[in-house]
Formats: sequence, C-alpha cells, structure tokens
Amino acid sequence: MVKRTSHEATHCPVARSLDAIGDWWSLLIVRDAFRGKRRFGEFQKSTGAAKNILTIRLRNLVAFGILEMVPVSDQSAFHEYVLTPKGLDLFPVVTALWQWGEKYFFEAGENHPVLRDRLTRKLIPKLEVLAADGRRLLPTDTTLTPQG
Amino acid sequence: MVKRTSHEATHCPVARSLDAIGDWWSLLIVRDAFRGKRRFGEFQKSTGAAKNILTIRLRNLVAFGILEMVPVSDQSAFHEYVLTPKGLDLFPVVTALWQWGEKYFFEAGENHPVLRDRLTRKLIPKLEVLAADGRRLLPTDTTLTPQG
Repeated sequence: MVKRTSHEATHCPVARSLDAIGDWWSLLIVRDAFRGKRRFGEFQKSTGAAKNILTIRLRNLVAFGILEMVPVSDQSAFHEYVLTPKGLDLFPVVTALWQWGEKYFFEAGENHPVLRDRLTRKLIPKLEVLAADGRRLLPTDTTLTPQG
Repeated sequence: MVKRTSHEATHCPVARSLDAIGDWWSLLIVRDAFRGKRRFGEFQKSTGAAKNILTIRLRNLVAFGILEMVPVSDQSAFHEYVLTPKGLDLFPVVTALWQWGEKYFFEAGENHPVLRDRLTRKLIPKLEVLAADGRRLLPTDTTLTPQG
C-alpha cells in the first residue's frame, strides 16, 4: 500500500534498496535519526518537509522496517521513531553520501558540519571499497557474477 | 533549469548529494555506468526507464558533473555517457547500497548477482565506517561538530 514496488522484480540489490529509501526525504530522515532525532516535530524541523509528506515518508520507513514506532513512556498518546538494526545498517550508505557531498558540493571555505570520531575527535576517514586483501578497488577492479 | 535546488541552502553534505542523485533512476544509471554501460539504449534497457525520463535524468547527471557526454569515434552523430571523476567517486555509495540491499531485500536462496574482486574472484567485504585507528564505528560513536 505504501510501498513502491517497481524494482522488486529486479535482482539488483541497489534497485531494491532504492525502493525503500529512493527519495530525498527518506534518507534525510534516516540521517537525522542517526543524529538522535526521534520525534515527528524534530524531523519536520530538520528536513523542512511538509507534514503530509513527512507522514507518508515515516510510514514508508516503518513499513520497510527501517524505523519502528515506540511509545513515549511519559506521554502515552505520543510515539517516537527509532532506527531498527536494518536502519542502523544504513550508516555506511549515509556516511559515503556525506563524504561525497562534502567533497563535491561545497566551495573552498564554505562551512558545513564535520563528522568526527566521538572518542578521539578525529575526522572519520573516507570510506573506500577494499578487497579482502585490503587493496583499494576501482569499479573496473570489480565484476558481477551469478551467485553460487 | 534541470537542477532541483531545494537543498542547496542547507549545509548538510547528504542533502546536497541528494539534490544530484536523489531519485531512483539517477543512481541506477550510475550503477550501470559502473558496469561499463555508456549508451542511451543500454541505460534504457537496463533501467527500464521511459525515454523521456531517461533523457531528463541523463541531462541532470551531466549538469551535475557526474557523467559527461563524449562523441562516439566511429559514428559522429552519436555520443556516449562516461563517468567523470566525481561520478567514479560514487562507487562507495553505490557499493554500500548494494550490500545493504543484498542483506535485507533478498530471501534466503533467492538469486542475485554477486560483486567480486576481478583479480581474486573473492567477494567484496562489507563497507564499514571505521575510525582513523581502525575501530568500527556505530552512529553513536560519531558526532557532528562545527568546522574548523
């Protein structure tokens, strides 16, 4: 009902992933959830999404098992949205996107927040596609094969 | 003209990245370009996109500097689409999305192509967000700070 199913028939993991998070708002909501936001109003404020759009997106993310609704203990009529393990596993996706955006969509000297290791305060190194033996791989160093 | 500008005002690298690739087709086109596809007809066949939609998406990807149009040497009226360095740098994003999709959108035993190291034929290890000292980081192990 709330799912878009156009890519389910494909056997490509990228296409299926995009069924779940393939619009702007969804991934921005996930980004905010990684930063500790949990409430409708918090997501509304940080994404700037209209209420009706945000409602649909949150419902979608719940339907796909990326967020789950949990009651707020002190106010029984309210609930919060919390990342599931599946949602938490989007961290490399969002971080890779963050790093790509940092590199290409900011002018020299243009300010933006910086992602740091909370413990050491050092910058998070760039995500790289590495081989099992640690070699850095370019797209042409990889190949798709049938399973098995 | 072909750009969507709603996130340019934000200082979030994820939001700006999504301006460029934040729809299904765009990232599927990039995925196919990583697999060596270069021609309009090839992208049409593999993404299943309608001609008019594919035309707009390709134009967008060129406008954002992710693809560039190069003439086909043997047929001067034709051109191909080739990833720029900025486009090639999307490899970790697409790979992270691939691996997430693999994990969560396929039933046990359901077949899908597998991404391998071309040299060793081994599977590509899962992308992880690592600290400078190699620790595996969860979202809560990271923090956003003002720049500088």
